[in-house]
Formats: sequence, C-alpha cells, structure tokens
Amino acid sequence: MNAEIIAVGSEMLTPERVDTNSLYLTAELNKIGVEVAAKSVIGDDRERLAEAVRRAVARVPILILSGGLGPTEDDLTREAVALALDRKLLFSEEIAAALERRFAQARRKMAEINRRQALVIEGAAVLPNDRGTAPGQWVEESGAVVMLLPGPPHELNAMFERQCLPRLARIVPRLAIRTLFLRVAGMSESDLDQLIAPVYKKYENPATTILAANGDIQIHLRARCATPAEADALLAEVGAPIEALLGDRIYSRNGDPLEAILGGLLRQNHATVSVAESCTGGMLGERFTSVPGSSDYFLGGFITYTNAMKIEMLGVLPEMLEQFGAVSKETAEAMALGARRRTGSTYALSITGEAGPDPGGKAPVGTVYVGLADAAGALAVDRQFLGDRQRIRTFTTQMALDLLRRRITRA
Amino acid sequence: MNAEIIAVGSEMLTPERVDTNSLYLTAELNKIGVEVAAKSVIGDDRERLAEAVRRAVARVPILILSGGLGPTEDDLTREAVALALDRKLLFSEEIAAALERRFAQARRKMAEINRRQALVIEGAAVLPNDRGTAPGQWVEESGAVVMLLPGPPHELNAMFERQCLPRLARIVPRLAIRTLFLRVAGMSESDLDQLIAPVYKKYENPATTILAANGDIQIHLRARCATPAEADALLAEVGAPIEALLGDRIYSRNGDPLEAILGGLLRQNHATVSVAESCTGGMLGERFTSVPGSSDYFLGGFITYTNAMKIEMLGVLPEMLEQFGAVSKETAEAMALGARRRTGSTYALSITGEAGPDPGGKAPVGTVYVGLADAAGALAVDRQFLGDRQRIRTFTTQMALDLLRRRITRA
Repeated sequence: MNAEIIAVGSEMLTPERVDTNSLYLTAELNKIGVEVAAKSVIGDDRERLAEAVRRAVARVPILILSGGLGPTEDDLTREAVALALDRKLLFSEEIAAALERRFAQARRKMAEINRRQALVIEGAAVLPNDRGTAPGQWVEESGAVVMLLPGPPHELNAMFERQCLPRLARIVPRLAIRTLFLRVAGMSESDLDQLIAPVYKKYENPATTILAANGDIQIHLRARCATPAEADALLAEVGAPIEALLGDRIYSRNGDPLEAILGGLLRQNHATVSVAESCTGGMLGERFTSVPGSSDYFLGGFITYTNAMKIEMLGVLPEMLEQFGAVSKETAEAMALGARRRTGSTYALSITGEAGPDPGGKAPVGTVYVGLADAAGALAVDRQFLGDRQRIRTFTTQMALDLLRRRITRA
Repeated sequence: MNAEIIAVGSEMLTPERVDTNSLYLTAELNKIGVEVAAKSVIGDDRERLAEAVRRAVARVPILILSGGLGPTEDDLTREAVALALDRKLLFSEEIAAALERRFAQARRKMAEINRRQALVIEGAAVLPNDRGTAPGQWVEESGAVVMLLPGPPHELNAMFERQCLPRLARIVPRLAIRTLFLRVAGMSESDLDQLIAPVYKKYENPATTILAANGDIQIHLRARCATPAEADALLAEVGAPIEALLGDRIYSRNGDPLEAILGGLLRQNHATVSVAESCTGGMLGERFTSVPGSSDYFLGGFITYTNAMKIEMLGVLPEMLEQFGAVSKETAEAMALGARRRTGSTYALSITGEAGPDPGGKAPVGTVYVGLADAAGALAVDRQFLGDRQRIRTFTTQMALDLLRRRITRA
C-alpha cells in the first residue's frame, strides 16, 4: 500500500528549511507496511495545491498534508482540498466554541481571523488538537483517505499517533516487516551492485536499497510478509547468498559504523592502537575517538604533516624520505613502525598521501598509502582515489580502518 | 521567474534521508532572483517520474532533477525525462570513452552497467562531471529548461555552479542582487539575534537570514534592487550598524570557514602552528589540514588520548596530572607548551576536555579547556558546552581556532 505526503507553505521552500514532518510520517507509515511513493513541498498557492491533491488521490490510497491550517490568508490547505474534492467548506460552531475556550484559558481574546480555523470540509471527521489551535481533518473519498494535519511537529506527531494511526489500522492490511541491514567496506558501489544484483533482482520482496557514501556502503533488505516467521524466512533465503558473495567485506550487521565495529574488535582482543597521519591531518584519530569509550583501546597519535615532523616524531629516516618520497610505501611503513614503537600500542596505522588539489611532490593527486604495523612487522597498501580533497581524505581513513579490521578478524 | 526541483530515488523516501540538494539549489536560484514554487521527491518509478516532469515543464520555465543518473537499473532519470519529452536516448561514444578513461585512471575496469551512464537525451547538452562518473544533461523544451544533475552533493554543486548558472544567466531576467555575508564565532545564536535584530527587523529588503551550526553563525543580508549601485548602497546602510555591533567577533566576510581565515593569517604572519589534542582526538588537526596549502603553516600535532601519552609525547609532568587532573587549565597549558617545544612552531593550540557521554574523571561532561602557547608563554580558557559528544568536540575546535585568530589579529 502506498502513500504520498505534501508539506504546505512557502516558508518550507526557503534554503534553510527542511520538511522533517515527512520523515516522522514515513517512519510511522513504514512500520505498518505502507510505503511513501512520493513527497512534495508546495507553496501557498490554492490552485497548484488543489491540482496536486487531485492527482495524488487518483494515484494512492493515502494522502497526508501537513501545514497550512493556521488562521491567516496564506493558510490554504482547507480550501485547496475542498476545491480538489469538489466539496463545500462548512463553518463548525462546535470548533469555533472550542477555539474561544482555548483562547479564554490563555486569557487572550480570539482574533476574528481564527474563525477560519473552524472551517471543515463537507463530510470530514474533525481531529481535535490539544497542543495548538488548528484542528486536523480526516476525509475519505472513493477509496482514498486524505489527512490534513497541522505543521508544528509536536502537534502533528501527537495527532497522527493518537487519531490517525488507529483509523489507518482499519484500512491497511496487517503486515509483518523485518529488515536485514549490512554495511560493507572496501568496494565501489558499482562493483558491489554487479556482484549482488543477480541475487536481489530476482525478488520484489524483500525490497533492496543500496546507499553509498564516503567509501561506505549500506545494504537494506526489507521483507514484508503476513507473519514474522515468513518475513524472517524470506530474509534468510535472500540474505544468505548475498552474505556469501560479500564475505568478510561485510563489517557490520547492526548499523554501527566501521570505527565502532573496529573499536569493539580491539576491546575484545585486549589490543590497543595508535595512528600516524600525514595528509588526513588527524581525521583517522578523530574517527577512532568519535566512539564513546574509545579510550579503552585508542592510545593516541602523531600528526606529521611535514617531513621534519615525520623524522622527529616518528623516527622516519631522512635518507628514506629523500630516496622514496613522503608519499611512498616505505614511508607509510616507517611511520606505522614509528608510531607503534613510540606509543607501545599493539597496532599502529599510518596514512600518507597526496590529497590535492595541487600535487605537492612526485605522486599524482589521489595517491595514498596506508601502513599497518604490529608485532610481526609492517606492511603498506596503496590506492588511487578520485575526487576532491575531502573525499580522498575520507576514503583513505575508511581504507585504514578496514585494513586493521580485516587484519584482526583474519588473525 | 519560478523553478521546481525534483529529487529522484527511493532511498530519498526513507525516514533517514533528507533532500539537501534542494536547499543548495534554492539558495543559488534565489541569488539570481528565481523562486522555487514547489519541490518533490519521487521514487524509482519511470512512469510516475515522467508524469511529474511533464507537468512541471508545463508549469514553470526551470526544472531541476537531482539523482537517478547512476549506472544501475534503478537509475531512471534519463529514461523518465526522455519519455516525458518524447525524445530518444542516444548512446554517446564520447561519454563512454571518458568513463573508460576515468576508470583506467583509478586502475579499475569499468563495469558493463556503467555504459548506461553514456545515454544522452536527444538534443541535450552534456554537462561533464569531474567529480564522479555521472555526466549531467541540459535539455531545452518549448521555452523551458530541464536540468539532470547527479545526486552526490559535491558533484551536483560543482556542476550547477560551473555549468548551469552561466547558462541560466542567459535566460533569467537580470535583477541586481547583492549579498553581505558575515561569519561570526564565539557567540550563541540567541545572543547574536538579540544584539542585531533591532537593526535588521526594520528592513524587508535586504532580507536577513541567520544560520547557526557547530558554534559558527552565518549572517546573510540579501538586497535585491534594480541596479547594483542601489543594492550596494542598501547593504552598506544596513550592514554598517550590524558590523559595528559585532566588532571582531566577525571573522569572515567572504564565506571562508574559520580554519581557512586563520590559515591566511598565519601565512601572512609567516607563523606556524601545531596542535595537542585529547578529547577531540585529531579533529583540530583535521580542520587545519582540510584547507588546501595548509602545509605552509601547519606543522603537525600530537593526539594524546591517555595520560601516558600526554607525559611521553608532550612532557606533561605526572605530578601535575595527578594534582589537577587531565581536564584542567594546568594540563591544557602544559600540553600547548609541550607541543610548541617539540615542534618548534610559532603557536601551539591544545584541547583537553570531557566529551562524554559518561564522565571519565572529576570534570562534568561538556567541560573543556583550550590552551594556547607562543613565545610569551601559555594561557588556557575553559568553557562548558551542552550536547552530545560530537557537538562538544566540534564546538571546542571552533573555540580553539577562534582563540588563536583573536590572538593574532589583536597582536
């Protein structure tokens, strides 16, 4: 079953405002098995809004409008919906009296314009609002339902939860929904998709969503079935081959980010870690320490942005820097060994690279080396990333965290 | 002149995702005098999307679509727009070759599905994408223009700024718009508003917007007049009293962030800086080095997350840590002095604090100390921040950068 959501108000079309009501409504609708097929924000324009309502009602059985129920002339939702459904607006003495009482309670006189809020669409059920002046409305029209809800989130949330969800339960078929959530590192989105598409494309249910950002990929499989047992069985059926294909590139099954998963592994193994960063300038340390309790395993690190600092803080040999350059496998290994030696950590990660935008040395922009040192010695891996400075730096920290994660899980 | 914006992708209809591209696009459109009349998010549904495009093109002269240009079968924007405008999709050998080169640069083989990204709508101008694989498209249709832009914000922003705005300038009637853009540190949003509201509330034009995030406040005054001279005069009239009230709390008049402004001051003064970070774990170094060319003044730093590291890396005295604790004025000063001594930098900044969520020592969560050392010695200032771990850490780095900025500008 599908729904559409419309937020009403020209103020929602400024560069600063985001329609957060639709996020709340989407979460609540998804919980009862309703998908949001589209959402929009429409300014204070009666005809434009009426057109949008008319088309949405023809497409989906559930339409929710938020905002535009205030007392001013800009508040056009009531009129637009009445126009779209070709119904009258009726003045409700009952609502007007309730509004008068509300104002009296606050020892204020009700302004004449507030009487607009007592206009009800012919045939609509009124949804009382105990947190504000604008009552909501629930209108049924040839198999579809249109909800008019107030814009302020605390009013909308309470009204939707207490008055709309119980009514929706009578309309929406009961469904059990289960989600499988995987996070993957060390692959591009297109490589991953090519690998697993042959599996998930065979199924409409569960629905698969793939999200990629900053070298991190999230895979959501959402199964909707008549019973929880069926949904779980379906997820197992589709999830198993996907998990087999991705193997240990899957780092998280609970939604936790890579730095938290790696932190958990370090803690479990009573291991500690330190870092030595050049082009990322502290970003790797920042990610480790963004996790509460990271002091259990993160000791500290060195931001060695210049060659002199690499020599002094980490003991990298000047002749090595001279021979191989700062952006090299040899320097990455020496940095990791130096950080481990100076902090006494179980593991040390190092990063050196060319983040751009202008190349500083011989290496092309986007070249990075990540070093890893432990009791057995050091190794370094290199990659060539595309994109701007921030992207290259973020991808490199992701690569470093994943390198250590795999080292620990494969040990 | 009006525009509509459509974000494409079922993943944008989940409870977690917000279409931020439309905010950037709205800001840029408003600057050239174009208002956004409506915006929407539509899932991966070719017919639904084609219908929306058809109707939008009939309503407004500018339609911008973001997302859905990726290589997978879910990426339907190209096909939907072609369908809506009743045009063919043509395979471009040129784009395919450019994609192949891009993959070769990254030493990867292009997946077969990426060839979908070389499909161009008949008659469209191709907008090259130097930050990702998906090229954009610019299609003109009976007085309207339709732009197809990639979803990732850093790709969309660059493409819109460099390739769409110059083309739009030929279509949109000229209105002189001038913006005064101030960035302020070291104040809360409500304190700032109380101070300057009596000035800006008197004017509808220029329009004033105040945005606060992460301890940083941006003030935008936008004047729209018939001529540039009129707009400049109006901005001067309203801007002068605001600038006088804020004084040196204004750190930027060109939009540059604090780390870039401070970097410029350091470079001008032939000065260098190093950092010593505890609770921020590298975030201050990361901010310094996010600025291209920061190797001119940023030497490096120490992430001393444990007491042992503070002692070994920075020479903080164990008895001082014992007596005052790690989160103290004395420790902050000793950390800054240690970083300066060990790197030989002109200035050193240090951060120690309790970022939470659970208090680690005696200091309550949110207590932070920032130390500053230079040739004259060291000082430390403290603050108590509210909020979660990430907020406390971000505010603290902002405070540290601003402390050094004021030291240099007042010297």
